[in-house]
Amino acid sequence: MNEGFRSGAGAMHPDRLFPADPGTRAIARTLYAQVRALPLISPHGHTDPRWFATNEPFSDPASLLLTPDHYITRMLYSQGVALEALGVAARDGSGTRSEPRVIWRTFAAHYPLFRGTPTRLWLDWVLAEVFGIEVPLTPANADRSFERISERLAEPAYRPRALFERFGIEVLATTESPLDTLEHHAAIRASGWPGRVISAYRPDPLVDPETPGFLANLARFGELTRQDTLTWRGYLEAHRVRRAFFAQHGATSTDHGHPTARTADLGARESEALFEQVVRSAQAGTLRGTDAEAFRAQMLTEMARMSLEDGMVMQLHPGAWRNHNAPLHARFGENIGGDIPTATDYVGALRPLLNRFGNERALTIIVFTLDESSYSRELAPLAGHYPALKLGPAWWFHDSPEGLMRFRERTTETAGFYNTVGFNDDTRAFLSIPARHDVARRIDCAFLARLVAEHRLPENEAEQVARDLAYRLPKQAYRL
Amino acid sequence: MNEGFRSGAGAMHPDRLFPADPGTRAIARTLYAQVRALPLISPHGHTDPRWFATNEPFSDPASLLLTPDHYITRMLYSQGVALEALGVAARDGSGTRSEPRVIWRTFAAHYPLFRGTPTRLWLDWVLAEVFGIEVPLTPANADRSFERISERLAEPAYRPRALFERFGIEVLATTESPLDTLEHHAAIRASGWPGRVISAYRPDPLVDPETPGFLANLARFGELTRQDTLTWRGYLEAHRVRRAFFAQHGATSTDHGHPTARTADLGARESEALFEQVVRSAQAGTLRGTDAEAFRAQMLTEMARMSLEDGMVMQLHPGAWRNHNAPLHARFGENIGGDIPTATDYVGALRPLLNRFGNERALTIIVFTLDESSYSRELAPLAGHYPALKLGPAWWFHDSPEGLMRFRERTTETAGFYNTVGFNDDTRAFLSIPARHDVARRIDCAFLARLVAEHRLPENEAEQVARDLAYRLPKQAYRL
Amino acid sequence: MNEGFRSGAGAMHPDRLFPADPGTRAIARTLYAQVRALPLISPHGHTDPRWFATNEPFSDPASLLLTPDHYITRMLYSQGVALEALGVAARDGSGTRSEPRVIWRTFAAHYPLFRGTPTRLWLDWVLAEVFGIEVPLTPANADRSFERISERLAEPAYRPRALFERFGIEVLATTESPLDTLEHHAAIRASGWPGRVISAYRPDPLVDPETPGFLANLARFGELTRQDTLTWRGYLEAHRVRRAFFAQHGATSTDHGHPTARTADLGARESEALFEQVVRSAQAGTLRGTDAEAFRAQMLTEMARMSLEDGMVMQLHPGAWRNHNAPLHARFGENIGGDIPTATDYVGALRPLLNRFGNERALTIIVFTLDESSYSRELAPLAGHYPALKLGPAWWFHDSPEGLMRFRERTTETAGFYNTVGFNDDTRAFLSIPARHDVARRIDCAFLARLVAEHRLPENEAEQVARDLAYRLPKQAYRL
Repeated sequence: MNEGFRSGAGAMHPDRLFPADPGTRAIARTLYAQVRALPLISPHGHTDPRWFATNEPFSDPASLLLTPDHYITRMLYSQGVALEALGVAARDGSGTRSEPRVIWRTFAAHYPLFRGTPTRLWLDWVLAEVFGIEVPLTPANADRSFERISERLAEPAYRPRALFERFGIEVLATTESPLDTLEHHAAIRASGWPGRVISAYRPDPLVDPETPGFLANLARFGELTRQDTLTWRGYLEAHRVRRAFFAQHGATSTDHGHPTARTADLGARESEALFEQVVRSAQAGTLRGTDAEAFRAQMLTEMARMSLEDGMVMQLHPGAWRNHNAPLHARFGENIGGDIPTATDYVGALRPLLNRFGNERALTIIVFTLDESSYSRELAPLAGHYPALKLGPAWWFHDSPEGLMRFRERTTETAGFYNTVGFNDDTRAFLSIPARHDVARRIDCAFLARLVAEHRLPENEAEQVARDLAYRLPKQAYRL
Repeated sequence: MNEGFRSGAGAMHPDRLFPADPGTRAIARTLYAQVRALPLISPHGHTDPRWFATNEPFSDPASLLLTPDHYITRMLYSQGVALEALGVAARDGSGTRSEPRVIWRTFAAHYPLFRGTPTRLWLDWVLAEVFGIEVPLTPANADRSFERISERLAEPAYRPRALFERFGIEVLATTESPLDTLEHHAAIRASGWPGRVISAYRPDPLVDPETPGFLANLARFGELTRQDTLTWRGYLEAHRVRRAFFAQHGATSTDHGHPTARTADLGARESEALFEQVVRSAQAGTLRGTDAEAFRAQMLTEMARMSLEDGMVMQLHPGAWRNHNAPLHARFGENIGGDIPTATDYVGALRPLLNRFGNERALTIIVFTLDESSYSRELAPLAGHYPALKLGPAWWFHDSPEGLMRFRERTTETAGFYNTVGFNDDTRAFLSIPARHDVARRIDCAFLARLVAEHRLPENEAEQVARDLAYRLPKQAYRL
Repeated sequence: MNEGFRSGAGAMHPDRLFPADPGTRAIARTLYAQVRALPLISPHGHTDPRWFATNEPFSDPASLLLTPDHYITRMLYSQGVALEALGVAARDGSGTRSEPRVIWRTFAAHYPLFRGTPTRLWLDWVLAEVFGIEVPLTPANADRSFERISERLAEPAYRPRALFERFGIEVLATTESPLDTLEHHAAIRASGWPGRVISAYRPDPLVDPETPGFLANLARFGELTRQDTLTWRGYLEAHRVRRAFFAQHGATSTDHGHPTARTADLGARESEALFEQVVRSAQAGTLRGTDAEAFRAQMLTEMARMSLEDGMVMQLHPGAWRNHNAPLHARFGENIGGDIPTATDYVGALRPLLNRFGNERALTIIVFTLDESSYSRELAPLAGHYPALKLGPAWWFHDSPEGLMRFRERTTETAGFYNTVGFNDDTRAFLSIPARHDVARRIDCAFLARLVAEHRLPENEAEQVARDLAYRLPKQAYRL
């Protein structure tokens, strides 16, 4: 990360997130000094590749920093702030969205809600370190902040590519549907700009028969790949074709967001029959949930098979109950209607896939969880055994200081550090990417410092681990 | 809390429960100084309103402090002490209960069992701070302690109202069935004593068809409210009538202790049919567990609907397997037969109610759990999204130093502090109320001190949060 | 533990595992000084009694320390090392196993994988304290280490009995099937050597109808006991006969490793019918999983009944999914094919047994878990209520510094210290037994030191608790 960025008026405390005990803090500082400035590897996220293709200025503080951040909108909504007041548009266009400056003031008035949350840490960092403005945000300084940020966004140094470079990002993966044209990724390459922005293959809209528009997606999939995607053979081949297309655009991984971690390992004929049943019943409007679940389960194994062929790393993100708040979802759509974690089984659910391909050393499956009770009970034992399985970092609700620490405390003793893959920022909030990696690096150093202070690991080995977690492991696991 | 109380021979250490690191401890002390003497808000508990109505002296140390405290009786029972030896009476009158002094000696002989438990902290506080006697209790000082306490209980300063005032209690809620006459609450008001002792509406005996005496309860409910409580319409109206009666006696909340968190949102006709089915099958002795569960589920939604009408705050306490020890329950009855927590689902269970009323800003539903695995996985995400939902504090087995700390560590990052509602002492043990609040205040200050020491929150903001958690939030959430 | 052993070149840090805060560390040191040299009580484990019967030298470093240790083989396997390269033999004899020195080098090359794991702590202790060689192991010192260990193994001081004595083991329990002849235990006694090596009765091969060879086991059981073990009456009597035989060889406990914690309490006729159904269907090859589960459930209650007769302590180890990795299991057999914990219910599962015998003060049932979410939710409340129930220590994946600490943090406040039973090393790795107990003693002292530093427990009481946990409680709970 560029040092010049780090001298704003509201510079953050250099010891933040380190343990309070002076001896342990001193060790944490030493470890952190080894990793602070390492390049950022961002192998999984949701930034918009268009930003880097067009390199146009970001429009305004609210639509850049607030409206698209569901950590922010959910917290304010939980305390009675209407989504329209935060700039979120209803699907039917009803309601009046607030102006950016008004949204910013509303946010400033509610900033105390974020005390003790990672959002506060990330936002303070963005305000202080990226924009050099005072923190915390208050109603008194809200207008001044809004203006200062607005001015800076108009400067060349705050355009997407400039920020990418100053943030020290070595590689940034976005996530796209197989139906995406990847035109922005192509444009980035064609532009000659050396920033490495790659895609990841996320086939959920074609793998989950319960996705709205599933059949239309299948049809478009067929057009793009010139395959008969209403047949099992053509459907699978279309995936192969499209995975190759993504690989040409730099993708090294696939990503699968399923309601559960269930997998299946059916025979070829059974799989074909299941596919046909799913398509026919979808066409007839009689799709059963059990068939949909079975199909998603089988497709994870099919994707693993293709990963063995083409070398793409598989990511599995299960266990979110999407759009839990049905009235809100009906009004505002996806990613706003309350996605809530659920208790998630891995031991039984992953067994068919792991028994089929889990012993393959050439395969890498990175599994995430929203159910922390599975860390020590299921995931660390599984990853500490199967060669193909690695543990993704603390995810979503848990990529916070306490959450990241619990991940290390509960997985390390069984899976070790080397069956984990470093940090994922998993964010749409581009400006917070360095802050998120910095939090993860600080927490890893804090954990390692405790091991050193308690004489559980020599300091020179802890330094090696800190560097591995921050840089080497994500590069290696994601084949970057 | 009255300072004069705090100078007993066995005064407790002023730094108890604060982190050992000297820098962090200094911050915790500063924070605690802000909240130590704030009035006590006790919005949920099980003290006996008769105490404050009659203001008669408590009888003796054992029947005041030991026999009714199921934390104490369960621990001694687990180590082989008979319940009769602790003064618990068998339902059929068999067995010989011990004398108070003998019970006290038995307890003193087993006091080491409570090392490391919150009971030890609470009891030591009561002995040292309320009665000014030496701690810990031992067989050698048991008789002296018993006599000292006995003497004090006869003094005016140890009568219920005097203690209430010296404890600095601003408001104390008890919990009553809709069939309760609230005569003691009325007597308290009529007496002119200014102590605020209010009720809470707990309709379980009329909402849970599996309660012994359910039909008799329904009949009595009809008499009290002059409604035909064997019809759905009359039954609902009876609740409205009785809720209004409770509100007149100061109640601002309802409380629901269900085996699970399941809710339902049936149509009016379905609800009516379910009620009729439940009543008919109860009359015939053929009630099915599934119907009982469905009825309890629907009634939570009905209660929420009434809360929107009358403004009462709803509390949901699910997940205890009551009377797990059937032989003991048969012999001694309720609250002694081993109530054990169970794994509890919230995400699916609460969805019908939340989809119906969760977006209502005028409604407050406070949810508790005995399943700590749900804190970060389900409850914090739900409370950090739905405007109507707030998190009750660590409950029952978890309202202990470690349990209270886990609650903050696992809920704050997703739900923040401001979707929580401060502390509930939830106790029958009146004399321990200040000790319980003091433990909660100290743990909150310890948690906040760590955030400050790790530069995650400025100290001035932590002071504000400490005051909010100790005083403002419970008053606001419970509309007191 | 013998002091002379503790002066190797690579002596470990005396403060390892103690909290970093200097004040708390000083308390931990004081507490640990009370327990460091207490004799080792090892009431549950899997060492080979033949070692102590024959007292022959151990063969070589790899087959002593690496190949049989599934913590080691699973970690290396997870990172792509073939099991044959670690000396594990395929069932069919295929593949070429490496030579001991080559295995040792492979292990040394992968030693960094164990950073942050308990294996590292245990192995470092064995290398440094038992063999006096430098740590950590590296490729550079691997050959030197191998040779040094090999030399020492040939010395009389490194024979099994000498190590047993120098380790300060007061009693060591092994675990055998009812079909075992206990000849080694008999030989140990007959030899006149005073080392106390006792057996434990593990009837799983006769209690679990899904065990391979179940019917042959039943037949052999009948021969050994001269009972008709194809009748319910004869089968039960055979257990009684064999339990008495084990008791004669010093056994004071039984052990039950079941897939779940389910228990049942059927009537005599139902039990008999179930047994006959299980035997008949096993003979016909039509055994149903539900019958097998029901039979295991009932047999736990039968074993409890016999424990009340003969005084043996019952241990229940549920919740492992054995041989999860089917291809690996097919090739290499038991204990290598990935045993993975599963979510485990106790509240409902144990109720039939506890309602039958849980109130018996003469019975001790020690229950273990691989599902840490049950500590505070289910197990501590159950053990803090039922007189017969005690909590076994953190087990298997969780007998590590973080795991042992979580056990105390989550069980103490509800169950206290005195419903727990001290530490089990549960190991095949004889040389690591002192290291494992030492880790447990240090963690208990670290936990107690925090209670003292936070003024939750006076230091003199903490010293008593430390001694109880290290020595008195396991002796008492296991009736040793």
